[in-house]
Amino acid sequence: MIGVTASAEAQQWEPLPAQPPIPADNPQTEQKVELGKILFFDPRLSEHGTLSCNSCHNVMGSGDDNRPNSIGMHDARGGRSAPTVWNAAFQSAQFWDGRADSLEAQAKGPITNPIEMGMGSAEVVMERLKSIPGYLPLFKAAFPGSPDPINMDNLAKAIASYERTLITPDTPYDRYVKGDKSALTEQQARGMQTFAELGCTACHSGANFSGPSSQAGQGFFMKFPTFAGSKYDNQYDLLLDTGRHAVTKQESDRHLWRVPTLRNIALTAPYLHNGKAQTLDEAVLVMAKTQLNKDVTPAQVKDVVAFLTSLGGTFPAQAMPRLPLTVGVSIVPAVDPHLKTTPLSH
Amino acid sequence: MIGVTASAEAQQWEPLPAQPPIPADNPQTEQKVELGKILFFDPRLSEHGTLSCNSCHNVMGSGDDNRPNSIGMHDARGGRSAPTVWNAAFQSAQFWDGRADSLEAQAKGPITNPIEMGMGSAEVVMERLKSIPGYLPLFKAAFPGSPDPINMDNLAKAIASYERTLITPDTPYDRYVKGDKSALTEQQARGMQTFAELGCTACHSGANFSGPSSQAGQGFFMKFPTFAGSKYDNQYDLLLDTGRHAVTKQESDRHLWRVPTLRNIALTAPYLHNGKAQTLDEAVLVMAKTQLNKDVTPAQVKDVVAFLTSLGGTFPAQAMPRLPLTVGVSIVPAVDPHLKTTPLSH
Ligand code: HEC
Ligand code: HEC
Ligand code: HEC
Ligand code: HEC
Ligand SMILES: [Ca+2]
Ligand SMILES: [Ca+2]
Repeated sequence: MIGVTASAEAQQWEPLPAQPPIPADNPQTEQKVELGKILFFDPRLSEHGTLSCNSCHNVMGSGDDNRPNSIGMHDARGGRSAPTVWNAAFQSAQFWDGRADSLEAQAKGPITNPIEMGMGSAEVVMERLKSIPGYLPLFKAAFPGSPDPINMDNLAKAIASYERTLITPDTPYDRYVKGDKSALTEQQARGMQTFAELGCTACHSGANFSGPSSQAGQGFFMKFPTFAGSKYDNQYDLLLDTGRHAVTKQESDRHLWRVPTLRNIALTAPYLHNGKAQTLDEAVLVMAKTQLNKDVTPAQVKDVVAFLTSLGGTFPAQAMPRLPLTVGVSIVPAVDPHLKTTPLSH
Repeated sequence: MIGVTASAEAQQWEPLPAQPPIPADNPQTEQKVELGKILFFDPRLSEHGTLSCNSCHNVMGSGDDNRPNSIGMHDARGGRSAPTVWNAAFQSAQFWDGRADSLEAQAKGPITNPIEMGMGSAEVVMERLKSIPGYLPLFKAAFPGSPDPINMDNLAKAIASYERTLITPDTPYDRYVKGDKSALTEQQARGMQTFAELGCTACHSGANFSGPSSQAGQGFFMKFPTFAGSKYDNQYDLLLDTGRHAVTKQESDRHLWRVPTLRNIALTAPYLHNGKAQTLDEAVLVMAKTQLNKDVTPAQVKDVVAFLTSLGGTFPAQAMPRLPLTVGVSIVPAVDPHLKTTPLSH
């Protein structure tokens, strides 16, 4: 029998809208999206000319790097795992701790972050972009009103516009809630019901499974672990990073985290803000225990994982961007100012 | 006046053929090219899951990384600069020292090279590919005869097939030698003549400007510097790397290098095997002095550089590949076995 019972039916199941929210001051245009895509793929936005946004958020794959933590300039690792950029446009706040209130605000961060793209300052970034002749016409076309269009705000607007195209509607789940009852397997439909009955939907609600759609920037935060004291606290180092507290310094924000999307979740292993849960099965077990104080059976885990797999979308086909190039000279510094060690020899 | 004089006319100027040579045992098929493209973009072919072929040979740009030396696993640098993969299919031997006699032979190198992609062994590579369910149907489609199609030879064949599509015919130069005399500017046409008169064509001949088209694997090698003793030897460290000699250990091969293509050369700064010449102007000056013992005037350099710019092709539009993904688990190792240092803190 395929179908869900009253309890899951009662749940408001929403399909993903065809468009994410678009801020009034950054309407989508073809020119901005194209420029944003080029910038997203341009490794010259990093100190050594080696890392682009796409290095850690591979949109040819799951929009992340499938690593516990990313590798930035100088082989540096941070403490957080890269979330997917697919459907990030549906989240009302960005980053695990929600510290950026829009994709525009987010996009300015990684470029100058020393353990991500490592550019010394926004000025260095702009200097580079201005030294690539092909960027000026692209920025002009994307920002026709701007007298000096190559600036950090426009860069962020263009990247955010591109990211707003990175959405995956029409998953089996979406087709199912729109009425196609054959879109889910029996196990997936059962898992959907278990997901609702266990209470996962208390937090992972709405079309994006990241909480109620709220005003841009507001974010939807929950304590993790809500039920501290389980074996998972140590097993997965759950208490090391204080989450939102580290941003606001408010005691009430200790271990508060933004509720993340579950769309394409089966493709974005490993899991949790620190990437310590290696499989989706583990992540579901951890959630049931730490967030709902429930011990779930292996069969329940399998069913919920099957359901979560139905949130995997068809990724839209994309054309490769072409990067504007410089003629006769590279703008990537020849001498590596930060290189402290001699090259490895093997 | 636009046109070339008898001396340049006498030179055999060849346009780029529409197809590079295809080896008899690896005919092009759509399925192989598509698989090869996916592999070329798959960072899971590297130890940390962070570097793909495209990281150092960015086909959204000039097919290289515009760096003096590339950055591999563990922030490692080698002593050689990454050549472009655009039109590499027209070279009869691969690498600066010609040590790989085909694109197939070349493709097996970087994946297990500890300072490039750093995979422990071919077995580790195959294990990874086999753990990604989506690869088996792709390899089966590309190699219908193979009973166990996921192997290093087929990987190399697929990547080589993709690389044979990375060609840029129909440059201004090509249109010019096919009869469209308006395809070059006056300065470019003058530079073409200077290029021939100086004797650059003694080495950079043929459709690919990398010497006579010879049998696959044969390579076309020349001494660099041919005229040692100029100030450039020290300025650009020209005598440090012994080139082909380091491969064959033959004294007669000391400082022999494969003659590289000049197609798209204006886009592949910095220059020379060690990337020490930062501008194309410098590279031309060095060549004239070290290869022909000629002191060229700044005007001659400008003209030759203008001509070389006419070798820049229109890059074919490409669709982004979609990487086959794993469900519920990442195949990139969670713990980094080679990480000796603690993460940088800033
Ligand atoms: C070196 C790796 C790396 C690079 C390069 C990088 N990111 Fe990220 N990204 C991360 C990590 C790690 C996080 C999570 C950080 C956190 O939450 O504290 C993140 C978070 C994000 C988020 C928030 C998603 C969410 O659901 O909260 C977006 C959007 C994003 N990055 C886009 C970009 C863009 C655009 C660029 C390029 C301008 C970029 N990233 C470059 C690693 C990287
Ligand atoms: C009380 C709120 C709450 C409840 C209930 C809850 N979650 Fe979560 N969930 C979160 C938060 C917050 C995170 C982010 C955890 C972190 O920072 O690592 C999260 C993370 C996850 C992740 C990992 C996301 C990623 O990208 O790594 C999965 C999978 C998940 N939840 C599934 C579930 C399932 C299944 C249930 C029910 C069994 C559930 N959640 C119940 C709040 C909740
Ligand atoms: C970490 C950087 C890096 C990665 C990753 C890398 N390469 Fe290279 N590649 C280089 C360098 C450096 C050279 C020149 C080495 C030499 O000549 O000794 C090179 C040479 C080549 C050449 C020879 C071109 C010519 O004109 O001689 C080809 C073709 C090539 N690489 C293709 C690939 C493929 C295919 C992959 C992935 C399987 C790959 N590369 C991965 C850096 C890299
Ligand atoms: C005697 C042979 C010979 C002659 C003559 C010669 N070249 Fe070269 N050229 C080479 C070799 C060999 C290399 C590779 C040098 C290296 O290993 O760094 C090279 C490299 C180059 C490069 C750099 C390629 C790159 O990708 O970095 C340029 C540009 C170039 N030549 C242009 C010229 C010009 C212009 C002339 C005439 C003024 C000329 N060459 C004359 C053999 C020659
Ligand atoms: Ca993840
Ligand atoms: Ca170069």
